[in-house]
Amino acid sequence: MSLLVVGSVALDSVETPTAKRDDVLGGSATFFSYAASYFTKVSLVGEVGEDWPAEHTKLLQSRQIDTAGLKVVPGAKTFRWRGKYQPNMNDRETLEVHLNVFEKFNPKLNDEQRQSRFVFLANGSPIMQLGVLEQVANPALAVCDTMDLWINIQRDELMKLLQRIDGLVMNDSEAKLLTQDENLVRAGHAVRKLGPKFVVIKKGEHGAMFFSEHETYVMPAFPTPDVVDPTGAGDSFAGGMMGYLASQGNFEPKTLKEALAYGTLVASFNVEDFSLERMKRIERPDIDRRMREYKQMLSF
Amino acid sequence: MSLLVVGSVALDSVETPTAKRDDVLGGSATFFSYAASYFTKVSLVGEVGEDWPAEHTKLLQSRQIDTAGLKVVPGAKTFRWRGKYQPNMNDRETLEVHLNVFEKFNPKLNDEQRQSRFVFLANGSPIMQLGVLEQVANPALAVCDTMDLWINIQRDELMKLLQRIDGLVMNDSEAKLLTQDENLVRAGHAVRKLGPKFVVIKKGEHGAMFFSEHETYVMPAFPTPDVVDPTGAGDSFAGGMMGYLASQGNFEPKTLKEALAYGTLVASFNVEDFSLERMKRIERPDIDRRMREYKQMLSF
Repeated sequence: MSLLVVGSVALDSVETPTAKRDDVLGGSATFFSYAASYFTKVSLVGEVGEDWPAEHTKLLQSRQIDTAGLKVVPGAKTFRWRGKYQPNMNDRETLEVHLNVFEKFNPKLNDEQRQSRFVFLANGSPIMQLGVLEQVANPALAVCDTMDLWINIQRDELMKLLQRIDGLVMNDSEAKLLTQDENLVRAGHAVRKLGPKFVVIKKGEHGAMFFSEHETYVMPAFPTPDVVDPTGAGDSFAGGMMGYLASQGNFEPKTLKEALAYGTLVASFNVEDFSLERMKRIERPDIDRRMREYKQMLSF
Repeated sequence: MSLLVVGSVALDSVETPTAKRDDVLGGSATFFSYAASYFTKVSLVGEVGEDWPAEHTKLLQSRQIDTAGLKVVPGAKTFRWRGKYQPNMNDRETLEVHLNVFEKFNPKLNDEQRQSRFVFLANGSPIMQLGVLEQVANPALAVCDTMDLWINIQRDELMKLLQRIDGLVMNDSEAKLLTQDENLVRAGHAVRKLGPKFVVIKKGEHGAMFFSEHETYVMPAFPTPDVVDPTGAGDSFAGGMMGYLASQGNFEPKTLKEALAYGTLVASFNVEDFSLERMKRIERPDIDRRMREYKQMLSF
């Protein structure tokens, strides 16, 4: 079924303990849509500025991503983020953020986008996320991401959003912040009780946890020795997850679990190089090969 | 097959964000042997002082643990540890350590102990661990634990020990310290290349990783909402693991994986109350019930 993602499209500058890259392709909607493209057709809604290299749009299109909703705003600049990873490659420091065109991002969906059945609202203000959700006529599954900033400054709007969505994907630190509970099992269920039917807590190198009324489970990350740049891991996780769900056209418990596994594996490729570099070198069979290893790893 | 554990037996004082206990039963060999006792007969070698409450020995004996090697040293005091857990229940601060009788712990094994086939050298100085290992006639499987202190002050002796053992169990931070590599997948294999045939890296609430020449895998922790006191989690993990291996009498890859799962589950019970309180309320069927849930959780 049709999958829509709305979120940031950015130019990232990333420093790790061993290397750095300037102005590479980034943004939550970018990582998400590229990851989802291994499973289904995805439509991306986002905004960039006049400094946007057209080759990036072509790259997305080469994976059949519908970029009709990727608007180049005249006179504006693209969202830029600069960050530095600690030696553990899990903690990072934001050195610079220039929201630029993303600051007033308030997208209007076209008719086709309004008919989307699977919707992912990548990290952005809950007000913007609610505004988008209201435009979608009849979503089968609406899932969103959020971050500490919105928990701190738009808590009421976030609470309203949580009442409206089916699923929430968030980081462990954000789940703790939102619930004031340091135990992730309790925190996950507490978030679920705020509205969403299911909650996924991302734990970076330690994998992800799933919470629904009748299920609680953990999926470990795929143990890769080649962590080069974790930027976009969470978004590619969500992209793999939602892409698989849309490809199956349902979100039964069994499908959701497979979707979390696919998200885990796409993210494990994503961290193996900067930006989309590693993902550019893989095809769906590479993901399925890793899936066989992953299933083997978890069976005993 | 016979299982021997040599290590500390202690009185712990533990403070968590919500409760505290003074002078409760603790120590690596204590948690280990209690956990192992669900699977096999285990023989404990350790030393305590005159302040040792005899009821603790009786408790261990009630689980068929052979305490012939638990020596009460006249004029000495039992090892005492006092610690405080951070709100995340994963990080802790040691407030006081009194090694007391453990400082000069240098056990002599009796004839039966020397014939042990499965041996676990719980955390202690590598010199002491080597001294014990040399007394065991023909171990089928010798596994040890270590800690940052020994990596820092007895590195050469630890390196010698690693050449002599079959398996090493250690924390994630210790693996990083020993190898100077922050990536746990690389660190695990680097430790393995120092001697042991397999390495298990414990990640606390995030589970454990296994490394052998041909295998790399992760086992997530069982997601319990009731983390009351993590003290002894690592030792009960090792006890469950070694106890199961000894009960099966082999350490084939398949058995090792099952053993890691059993270790994971015994540890998940252990953290649900202070000291051995939670474990005192469970029997083997409780562990097997949780095993079924765990397998269900990991299958998709």
